[in-house]
Amino acid sequence: MAATGPTSPGEAVALFTARLVPVGTERVPLEVASGRVLAEPLVADRPSPAIGVSAMDGYAVDSASFRPGVVRVAGEARIGREPVRLEPGSAVKVSTGAPVPLGADAVIKREDVAERGGTIEVAASVRVPAGVNVRRRGENLDAGARVLGAGEVIGPSRASALACFGAARPLVHRRVRVALLVTGDEVRDAADPVADWELRDSNGPALRALLGGVPWIELLPPRRCPDDPDVIRSTAEAALSAADLLLCTGGVSMGDRDFIPEVLRSLGAQVAFHRIPQRPGKPVLGALTPRNQGVLGLPGNPLSVMVTARRMAVPVAMHLAGIAREPSPPLVAIDADARGLDLWWHRLVRLSGPGRGELAESRGSGDVPSAARADGFVEVPRGRSGAGPWPFYPWGL
Amino acid sequence: MAATGPTSPGEAVALFTARLVPVGTERVPLEVASGRVLAEPLVADRPSPAIGVSAMDGYAVDSASFRPGVVRVAGEARIGREPVRLEPGSAVKVSTGAPVPLGADAVIKREDVAERGGTIEVAASVRVPAGVNVRRRGENLDAGARVLGAGEVIGPSRASALACFGAARPLVHRRVRVALLVTGDEVRDAADPVADWELRDSNGPALRALLGGVPWIELLPPRRCPDDPDVIRSTAEAALSAADLLLCTGGVSMGDRDFIPEVLRSLGAQVAFHRIPQRPGKPVLGALTPRNQGVLGLPGNPLSVMVTARRMAVPVAMHLAGIAREPSPPLVAIDADARGLDLWWHRLVRLSGPGRGELAESRGSGDVPSAARADGFVEVPRGRSGAGPWPFYPWGL
Repeated sequence: MAATGPTSPGEAVALFTARLVPVGTERVPLEVASGRVLAEPLVADRPSPAIGVSAMDGYAVDSASFRPGVVRVAGEARIGREPVRLEPGSAVKVSTGAPVPLGADAVIKREDVAERGGTIEVAASVRVPAGVNVRRRGENLDAGARVLGAGEVIGPSRASALACFGAARPLVHRRVRVALLVTGDEVRDAADPVADWELRDSNGPALRALLGGVPWIELLPPRRCPDDPDVIRSTAEAALSAADLLLCTGGVSMGDRDFIPEVLRSLGAQVAFHRIPQRPGKPVLGALTPRNQGVLGLPGNPLSVMVTARRMAVPVAMHLAGIAREPSPPLVAIDADARGLDLWWHRLVRLSGPGRGELAESRGSGDVPSAARADGFVEVPRGRSGAGPWPFYPWGL
Repeated sequence: MAATGPTSPGEAVALFTARLVPVGTERVPLEVASGRVLAEPLVADRPSPAIGVSAMDGYAVDSASFRPGVVRVAGEARIGREPVRLEPGSAVKVSTGAPVPLGADAVIKREDVAERGGTIEVAASVRVPAGVNVRRRGENLDAGARVLGAGEVIGPSRASALACFGAARPLVHRRVRVALLVTGDEVRDAADPVADWELRDSNGPALRALLGGVPWIELLPPRRCPDDPDVIRSTAEAALSAADLLLCTGGVSMGDRDFIPEVLRSLGAQVAFHRIPQRPGKPVLGALTPRNQGVLGLPGNPLSVMVTARRMAVPVAMHLAGIAREPSPPLVAIDADARGLDLWWHRLVRLSGPGRGELAESRGSGDVPSAARADGFVEVPRGRSGAGPWPFYPWGL
C-alpha cells in the first residue's frame, strides 16, 4: 500500500467517490420509481394547498359580517369540488380539506355549534376571527418553490410529493450495474453434494441478498470461476463490458494463487489501494479501470466479504447511483471489553434494544454461524476501545 | 373508542398482533429467498469448519516430531482439495482455508520461515505448539446445532449461513398479501389535469413506495374509489377476497361522508379500535374481518397516511409475515422545544448526524413538502417533552 493511500475503510470509500462519476439518467413512471434516485429538483407546479381549504369539519362564514345566534346554512362545500359562493348572512357546511367558499374567510368548528336542520346556533362566546380554521392557499409552499433536490432516494414521503406536484414521470438516475465475480477452486453450489474438504459458495448468496433487492441497483448475473488467471481475466473482462462496478471475492491475498491483482493490472486497471488496516477484510483491493469503472476485490472469507461489501462496496455504489447524502449510520453501544486494536475493527453485534447491542464474538472470518446470528456490525476506529456508541452497519440496506 | 381499547399506537399494534395469525409457508430457491422470512430453524448439516483447515498461509507440520532448522517441503495443500498426507519429518505448504494434511496438527506462518526452493528454514525461536494456526473441525459449530431460528429475515449473513449448510430451498413464509384502497371523490392521477380545488392522489404513490418493494409483501393492485358506500363496499369486498391485510385511506373521520366504519361493519368486520390519541392520525380505525383478516382505516390526509402506515400498518404486516423480532427502532435526539402534548406525537425529523435529527415542523397533515424533506419521524410519548432521544421511524423500510 502506498504511503499516501487510504488508511481506513472510510478513506478508501472517499477515494472512490472522488474518482467515480454517478451514472446517467432516465425518466420512469412514478408507479415504478420507488427506491430510485431523483436526478432533478422537484419544483412545485402549484401552491400547497392549491386553494384555501378548511382545516376542520364545520361551517364557513364571513368573519367581518358574522354575528352569533341562529344562522341559516345555505349549501355545502365538498372536497374536490369547485368552491361554492357564500350567501351574505348565511353559513356553508364544510368538511376538512374542502375549498373555502367564495366570500368566506373563517370556519366555525362543528363541535362549537348546535346543528338544527337548516340552521346552526352559534353562542356569543365562540370567537370567529378572520382566517380561523382555514389553511390558506400556498401556506405550505408557493408555486415555483423547490420541494426536493436531486440525489434524494424516492421513499414514501418523496413519492407523495412527486405525485402532489404532478411529477408523473420523474427524472431518475438509471440503476447502477453491479457485477459479481466469485473466485475459488473450492466453491460448490449449496444444492450440490459436498465433500468435507469442499466449501459451499456462500459469498454469491450473501452478495445477492445484499444487493439483489436494492431498487437503484441492477445486479448482473453472478459469475463464478476457478483460481485460473486466464479464466478470471476473460470473465472479469466480460463482466466489465456491462458493469459500472465489479465486485470480486477471493484471490486478493499475497498467496501464490491470488490472481486478482495481476489480472486487474493486465486489464489496464489502476490499483488505487491494496490492504486496509481493518479486521476482517485487510487484503481488500480497490482499482479503477481505463473506462473509470470501479473494482473492489473483496477477500474470500465469508465474513470478510459481508463486512467489506457492506462497509465499502455499498457506499461506493450509492455514490455511483447519484445518492447525494449517504445516510448517517445509527450509533449502537456495545457491552465491550476494554481492548483496542491497531486497526479498524468491525465487531459483530446483535441488537438488544434501542441503541444497544450485544457483541456476537466471531471465531474468525470463516465463522458464518456467528455472523448469521448478528444483526450487523459496529466499526470501532483504530486504537479506540470500550462500549462506544459506535457507528452501526446492519447487514441489509 | 371503548374504555378498554388501545390508548397508544403501540397498544393498537399489539392488539392486532395478538389476534392475527402469520401466513403460511412455501419452499423457494435460495437465489430468490433474499428478504423473505425463514419459517423453520436452520440446523447445521455438517460441522463448521467441516474439516480442520489452516488459518494462515504457511507450512503444516506435526508438532510432536517437528524440529527447527532446514525442513523439506513435500507437497502442497490447496483449498477445496482432499487432504494430502504429511511425510514424517517434512512440511506441507498450505494456504489459508486449505485442509490440514493428515498427520499434521500445526501450521507455521509463511512470514516465520525462510523459503529456499524445496526447503524451508525455521528458526529455533519459532514456537510450534499443537493446534497453532489451525481451525479445528467444528470449532465454530457442531453438526446438528441450530444456526438460526424461524422468523428471521433472510439478509446477507443469513443467506450465507443457509448456503453454508446446504439449505438450497429454505422453507419461508409466503408473502403477505396487502391490498390498498384509496377513497375520496377528490383524488386525481398525478399525470392528469387538475383544477385548483382538486387534489392529486399522493396516498397511493406513498403506500406503493412504502410497501411495494418489500420482499415479504405481495402488494395487490391498488384500488381507488369515490366516497360512495356501495362502491367502497364492493371494492373492499373484492380486495378482501385475496388480501391478508387491507389498508384503506380516507373516510374514517366522524363526517357525514366518512363511510369506512359502516362499510366494514356491513361486511361483518369487528371494529377493534377507532381513534387513537396521536398526532397525526387520530381517526385511525382497526378492524378484523370474519375470516380474521386485518383492516386498517388510515385517515386520508397525506401525512396521516404516511405516519400511520409506517407506525402501525408495517408492524402488523411484519407480524403477519412471521417476523419473530420486530427490529428495535433506533433512537434519535431532536433539537426540541419544551412542549408536551396529551397524545402520542409523531414529529418530522431530518437526520443531521449519527443519532441526531433536526425537527422539520409541519403545518399540518396536508403539508407534504415538509414530510418530503424529512427522513422520517420520532414518536414522542403522551405527556413527554424535550430532546429525547426518541424512537425514530425512517419513512422507508
